[in-house]
Amino acid sequence: MTAPQRIAVLNGPNLNLLGERQPEVYGHETLDDVRALCRRGADAAGLELDFRQSNHEGELVDAIQELRHSTVGLVVNAAAYTHTSVAIRDALAVVTAPVIEVHISNVHRREAFRGHSYLSDVVDGVIVGCGTQGYELAIARLVRLAADRAADSRS
Amino acid sequence: MTAPQRIAVLNGPNLNLLGERQPEVYGHETLDDVRALCRRGADAAGLELDFRQSNHEGELVDAIQELRHSTVGLVVNAAAYTHTSVAIRDALAVVTAPVIEVHISNVHRREAFRGHSYLSDVVDGVIVGCGTQGYELAIARLVRLAADRAADSRS
Amino acid sequence: MTAPQRIAVLNGPNLNLLGERQPEVYGHETLDDVRALCRRGADAAGLELDFRQSNHEGELVDAIQELRHSTVGLVVNAAAYTHTSVAIRDALAVVTAPVIEVHISNVHRREAFRGHSYLSDVVDGVIVGCGTQGYELAIARLVRLAADRAADSRS
Amino acid sequence: MTAPQRIAVLNGPNLNLLGERQPEVYGHETLDDVRALCRRGADAAGLELDFRQSNHEGELVDAIQELRHSTVGLVVNAAAYTHTSVAIRDALAVVTAPVIEVHISNVHRREAFRGHSYLSDVVDGVIVGCGTQGYELAIARLVRLAADRAADSRS
Amino acid sequence: MTAPQRIAVLNGPNLNLLGERQPEVYGHETLDDVRALCRRGADAAGLELDFRQSNHEGELVDAIQELRHSTVGLVVNAAAYTHTSVAIRDALAVVTAPVIEVHISNVHRREAFRGHSYLSDVVDGVIVGCGTQGYELAIARLVRLAADRAADSRS
Amino acid sequence: MTAPQRIAVLNGPNLNLLGERQPEVYGHETLDDVRALCRRGADAAGLELDFRQSNHEGELVDAIQELRHSTVGLVVNAAAYTHTSVAIRDALAVVTAPVIEVHISNVHRREAFRGHSYLSDVVDGVIVGCGTQGYELAIARLVRLAADRAADSRS
Amino acid sequence: MTAPQRIAVLNGPNLNLLGERQPEVYGHETLDDVRALCRRGADAAGLELDFRQSNHEGELVDAIQELRHSTVGLVVNAAAYTHTSVAIRDALAVVTAPVIEVHISNVHRREAFRGHSYLSDVVDGVIVGCGTQGYELAIARLVRLAADRAADSRS
Amino acid sequence: MTAPQRIAVLNGPNLNLLGERQPEVYGHETLDDVRALCRRGADAAGLELDFRQSNHEGELVDAIQELRHSTVGLVVNAAAYTHTSVAIRDALAVVTAPVIEVHISNVHRREAFRGHSYLSDVVDGVIVGCGTQGYELAIARLVRLAADRAADSRS
Amino acid sequence: MTAPQRIAVLNGPNLNLLGERQPEVYGHETLDDVRALCRRGADAAGLELDFRQSNHEGELVDAIQELRHSTVGLVVNAAAYTHTSVAIRDALAVVTAPVIEVHISNVHRREAFRGHSYLSDVVDGVIVGCGTQGYELAIARLVRLAADRAADSRS
Amino acid sequence: MTAPQRIAVLNGPNLNLLGERQPEVYGHETLDDVRALCRRGADAAGLELDFRQSNHEGELVDAIQELRHSTVGLVVNAAAYTHTSVAIRDALAVVTAPVIEVHISNVHRREAFRGHSYLSDVVDGVIVGCGTQGYELAIARLVRLAADRAADSRS
Amino acid sequence: MTAPQRIAVLNGPNLNLLGERQPEVYGHETLDDVRALCRRGADAAGLELDFRQSNHEGELVDAIQELRHSTVGLVVNAAAYTHTSVAIRDALAVVTAPVIEVHISNVHRREAFRGHSYLSDVVDGVIVGCGTQGYELAIARLVRLAADRAADSRS
Amino acid sequence: MTAPQRIAVLNGPNLNLLGERQPEVYGHETLDDVRALCRRGADAAGLELDFRQSNHEGELVDAIQELRHSTVGLVVNAAAYTHTSVAIRDALAVVTAPVIEVHISNVHRREAFRGHSYLSDVVDGVIVGCGTQGYELAIARLVRLAADRAADSRS
Repeated sequence: MTAPQRIAVLNGPNLNLLGERQPEVYGHETLDDVRALCRRGADAAGLELDFRQSNHEGELVDAIQELRHSTVGLVVNAAAYTHTSVAIRDALAVVTAPVIEVHISNVHRREAFRGHSYLSDVVDGVIVGCGTQGYELAIARLVRLAADRAADSRS
Repeated sequence: MTAPQRIAVLNGPNLNLLGERQPEVYGHETLDDVRALCRRGADAAGLELDFRQSNHEGELVDAIQELRHSTVGLVVNAAAYTHTSVAIRDALAVVTAPVIEVHISNVHRREAFRGHSYLSDVVDGVIVGCGTQGYELAIARLVRLAADRAADSRS
Repeated sequence: MTAPQRIAVLNGPNLNLLGERQPEVYGHETLDDVRALCRRGADAAGLELDFRQSNHEGELVDAIQELRHSTVGLVVNAAAYTHTSVAIRDALAVVTAPVIEVHISNVHRREAFRGHSYLSDVVDGVIVGCGTQGYELAIARLVRLAADRAADSRS
Repeated sequence: MTAPQRIAVLNGPNLNLLGERQPEVYGHETLDDVRALCRRGADAAGLELDFRQSNHEGELVDAIQELRHSTVGLVVNAAAYTHTSVAIRDALAVVTAPVIEVHISNVHRREAFRGHSYLSDVVDGVIVGCGTQGYELAIARLVRLAADRAADSRS
Repeated sequence: MTAPQRIAVLNGPNLNLLGERQPEVYGHETLDDVRALCRRGADAAGLELDFRQSNHEGELVDAIQELRHSTVGLVVNAAAYTHTSVAIRDALAVVTAPVIEVHISNVHRREAFRGHSYLSDVVDGVIVGCGTQGYELAIARLVRLAADRAADSRS
Repeated sequence: MTAPQRIAVLNGPNLNLLGERQPEVYGHETLDDVRALCRRGADAAGLELDFRQSNHEGELVDAIQELRHSTVGLVVNAAAYTHTSVAIRDALAVVTAPVIEVHISNVHRREAFRGHSYLSDVVDGVIVGCGTQGYELAIARLVRLAADRAADSRS
Repeated sequence: MTAPQRIAVLNGPNLNLLGERQPEVYGHETLDDVRALCRRGADAAGLELDFRQSNHEGELVDAIQELRHSTVGLVVNAAAYTHTSVAIRDALAVVTAPVIEVHISNVHRREAFRGHSYLSDVVDGVIVGCGTQGYELAIARLVRLAADRAADSRS
Repeated sequence: MTAPQRIAVLNGPNLNLLGERQPEVYGHETLDDVRALCRRGADAAGLELDFRQSNHEGELVDAIQELRHSTVGLVVNAAAYTHTSVAIRDALAVVTAPVIEVHISNVHRREAFRGHSYLSDVVDGVIVGCGTQGYELAIARLVRLAADRAADSRS
Repeated sequence: MTAPQRIAVLNGPNLNLLGERQPEVYGHETLDDVRALCRRGADAAGLELDFRQSNHEGELVDAIQELRHSTVGLVVNAAAYTHTSVAIRDALAVVTAPVIEVHISNVHRREAFRGHSYLSDVVDGVIVGCGTQGYELAIARLVRLAADRAADSRS
Repeated sequence: MTAPQRIAVLNGPNLNLLGERQPEVYGHETLDDVRALCRRGADAAGLELDFRQSNHEGELVDAIQELRHSTVGLVVNAAAYTHTSVAIRDALAVVTAPVIEVHISNVHRREAFRGHSYLSDVVDGVIVGCGTQGYELAIARLVRLAADRAADSRS
Repeated sequence: MTAPQRIAVLNGPNLNLLGERQPEVYGHETLDDVRALCRRGADAAGLELDFRQSNHEGELVDAIQELRHSTVGLVVNAAAYTHTSVAIRDALAVVTAPVIEVHISNVHRREAFRGHSYLSDVVDGVIVGCGTQGYELAIARLVRLAADRAADSRS
Repeated sequence: MTAPQRIAVLNGPNLNLLGERQPEVYGHETLDDVRALCRRGADAAGLELDFRQSNHEGELVDAIQELRHSTVGLVVNAAAYTHTSVAIRDALAVVTAPVIEVHISNVHRREAFRGHSYLSDVVDGVIVGCGTQGYELAIARLVRLAADRAADSRS
């Protein structure tokens, strides 16, 4: 059986306002810019891209469930839900493909409650404070892991 | 007026994946199995069953509000929202029928944050770690309470 | 360009049950009564009123985003989400118009967790325990701030 | 017997420096401005005004005791003593007329210790971050409560 | 070898006063009523019943040790020792038969220290706030588990 | 019906060593001295005295249960169990006669854990650091309360 | 040199309202009743009585300093300042005569912050929840200690 | 007078199950093996051995009191009571002979609550995680201390 | 305009007892000795000295307010109020001249609560445990800062 | 002046054992493998590489100071010192070039103390749990930032 | 291959001052005395001894790494670094030979921060408060473990 | 024997960068400036000066040990190690000459972790936030103490 060849990127609440919201923290790029940037990363690796954003915790849970068998990797920037959602944590724990958690800003420089993530110990890696490039780096990581698994399964 | 003769069972996020998600924790039964099991319990007591699942906190609040006057008892397995939702707590506090909180696994053996429930002190009883049989036991409790109230009102 | 002349009032989960839920805490007025009361306040100031309620955190985030450029001020009673939602906090932080947080009951007399608000340090003012009149007072505050800004911009 | 027709406003330590102290936090109005503003509110409602300030915790306790039977309502801005005085809390607990706690600035945006008030759970309402208008709003609340009680006692 | 066919119910301190102590919390049934109720449950399943109560932590430890090889399941209501006894926890950890922890009242509605149990993470299930019916439900659970094991060993 | 005319004094672990153990903290009087001192207090009030000591938590629970209907008041120095026993707390909560908690030494000057008592909020009064005279004072308090109740029941 | 033969009783904030304030907690006796009661105790022991009350922390410090060499013992009910005043603690630490801390109500049954006293570990004894009789018991303790010291100095 | 020449070893709850309970943690030796091992150590030093086990906190207190004057040293493995018993702590504080606390397993690798001992700061030494050899080492330590004291008293 | 040429030293509660109170902690010098020492420091720098002590928190607030525009620097030893007074903190925050906090003893060697100061983060420097010489050092610091500012304003 | 064109990678204690230490956590690559991998990343960007490892906190501080003006970016994997070193934090705060913190394993899945980093809020980005590829990703980030700055300075 | 036959003893900061530093806590023996004592233990078991001391955390890490394959056991008294060094913890985790942690004094009787060790849960055993004999006991333990392993490998 | 006539000043990590690192916090003076300033203070008192800086915790421990018998006083600015080093604390505890802890900036205005010092309760005095003049003040204090001791030993 051929493994699914899609990569998914999920964005949480208020990220649709990227570029407008606190540009001194998040920069001036929009979420469309991020989507384009992710698409380039996926294209380069010959992967499809599924890129979504929602302000609803439940929709993010639904999306993770839907994607759980059909991707070679998941990039998750759960934004505010990072700090409050056990539901997203539980959904991620079901995903068998690797998951990378991304935060555009350096959350450790902000309010104390942003220092805690309900997700970090159920994902594979975490990339923080690398701006929108963080998405690129996360995709690079997922592509590498997929290649390693492919190599393993061939050997 | 005849009292409503329906019992309701509400299931929270990721319980639709029951049987797939962490089977070493939750076992191999699916949510359909749980529904069937609950129906048998309701049938035996001559009650209708309203059985629902949602990954959305707001839908669970809506459901509790909708059901608040029309059931003889409520079984709630709020899953991840147990630990994070004051909204569900506040909705349950409006329900006048008895409420039993159920958790399939023994939450006390898992991450520390699962040891705290926002719901336990506004419900009537809590049944933890009895597998899917916990739903049966909860229904048995609600049926008994309904019978006691019926007996009281007759006397 | 003429500044938008609308005021918005957002109500969180279970406030649709106002008048029914814990009347010893919240009183007997309904949310329709609150809407009427807010309309009188808005009318007196020559403002339109946008009055909403939702049990869904994501819908409240959506609404705040939608309203963020089109109101002279926002009244927010996030109810249970006050204590758990970083997503609503983050959405409010994008609103440039002033925001007043309102709680009908005196939250400091209730469970300890109600003493913490994720919103208070990103809003402008907080009015607690003044019953439904709290909405009136909040609108009075927003009207004053709008008048001050108008005076500033004229000078 | 005719109910006492006086409203009292008590101000705590350093509020005599209002307008000079941290104007970026407290604005440029002086305590005399606040007194005038309160007088207008009281006059409009046909009430006398008793307006005081003290830097001494004990004098504030004395004042609350003295006023406890002779006012239709009390506005208290205990300033720094808000966070440290059980004595003022205990005195307020004896007052039978309603009490509204006021803070000019948004205390939730300042040092963490200002987030705790020894008074909030023994007063009726709390108004925070509405500038000196907070006093007006508090008086409006007390006038409404007095009117409601008068209406109740007539019916 | 035929497996032992006895079920045991252990009751901790002050439960001998059941029916007299805080009847608004615990109801009016006595411990003899509970014994009768448990006997009916055991009889129905064709099991012997060993039902004990002690005010002494050490006696409860002795009892658990004595019973550890000779029962198909254990119901434990350790009452006050639930919150303070590591010794009972350690004894229970030696029992190979399943153990269900029962509390008659909803301990989550009482003093904060009753929210912590030294036992919950070493037992199999926990049933709280179901009144004396909690014992029945616990026995039903143990009977089911015994039946499952019997079925397993036959297959 | 004539009320029981006995007063009881219960002493916890290691108090049998009074006079030997840490005399710089507890003084040189023995438990027999304390018994004699209590007897004089009881005699003066025309009451019988029941004076006991045990190193066993369960025996103290047994004793409190046994005495719960047959005394006009209870003096309890639970010593080390003060800080660890919910079982004794629960037993004391059943006693309808007044209870005074006594500690010979000033527990607030010793290890931090001695600053917490599981008993203080279920007893009527607490007397600390008054040496063995604390027992006398406690009996004086119980005698007064008994006299007040007697006066009440006569009127 | 003859030792000073005066006993002092200091009362903190709001105790001048005794009998009016929360009579369900503090009873119906007034502070004048307490003064009379203390005078009887002092008279019986042939001691003068210095009985004071103040709502001002600084006045209590002044009083303790003034009295520090001229009394055979001090009874202190610092009321609210018990929980907040290091200044009174420091003043008491200078007093060489014994000091007994008294609280009329059982502070352990009230708000959690009343469970902490800044004074208890610098005084000799603490008497809690014995009503106004607590003052009598405290004086009895001080009289005994004075007699013991007198006996010691004679021997 | 010749000093008593006996060494005592006290074992707390569930240690009678040694060899059966969690052998992966505690190993396969039984308590009889430990007794034999201790006897060899005592014999080698020409000392008598008093070796006991109890599941009852009060019996351990009784035993410590009984032994407090008659041993040259005490080995205490209080097992579960290590973490919960102030009573045993207080009893040990009366013993004038040296005391060594022993734990067979490395308690620091287990549940967090096992990291706290009520005994460690009142005993002389603590030996953890050395298996049953820990008893031997403890006896070696006590023998050395006794020899040192004997040497001191001869010089 | 010539800048005011006065230096002020404020002393908090119980410092009037210096030399008598805990001489092992504070030494034998009296507050008059400290005044003389400060006068020598001020004289040497050609400055007037305003030296005060009060046991009243409010008087210290009054004094700081009075002195806020008329000194080149302030030395504050708030003694006990260091640990409890937000009011003094707020008053000091208004002072534009530099402020040095002094403690005679090493507060870090005493009770844990003395390790926290409400003042340290609003003053310029803190000198602890240098005995009464700490006042001299503080004045030396203020003199230097005044000289630096004078030099700055000349350049 | 031409900006320095060197990138530095600093490795903390025990990383010299990479490949040997806990391979199930850290994988089988050695530090030489990481060096080679970093060199390829630097070469691709036309940068020199300075790659170091030390087990000494002070040497890491020395190295950061030495490199602070001569690199276009710093990759720091401080290993154990991440959780304990304020000295390294302070040294990093002096570096004007961007800094990326890297951890090979997912520290959030390990001991709780590894969840806290003294470095994260003074660096620019953090990459966790991406294996040795994390170094590559960090270098990619630094290269991008250098390119952006170069572009900025040209425009 | 013959297993290495060396035992190592590592001593942390300030232990070179043994005998001089706080002799009332540590006794009068010097580190040379400890070395001699360890040599006797090693000689008796036919083992070489490697005995070191350093005040440098990094040197201790280096030493542990160097010794990790060449000893049959390690005794570590990390002194102050016990409470602060994750680096030493991580180095010890690589050692495959057994490790015993030793503290000469009873750390549980000293400052609270000495009650926490970063090492205890990665070593095999801990010996506290047995004076310098603790080193002997630790060597005895390591010799036993080596003998057991030798016996295992022969069988 | 003539007492040693040297004063020592020890500086911790990153202080070699003084003048460059965060000049808005630490000012523009360099460590050479501080050395010159200290030399003037020592010269004026006829003392030699030993002035050192190290980024290595172990070197600071070595230095303190080396200096412990040969100085009349020690000034220590341990910088970052202030907050993390028990080793330096233990070394300082061996020094018999007085020790003054200095911090150039006001550490109480910075990150919360800088509010805790492992050194403060083992040194004699602490001077914070007085800039580099703090070194001068510390030397003045040590000179005074040396003079006092000299005077004592002559008398």
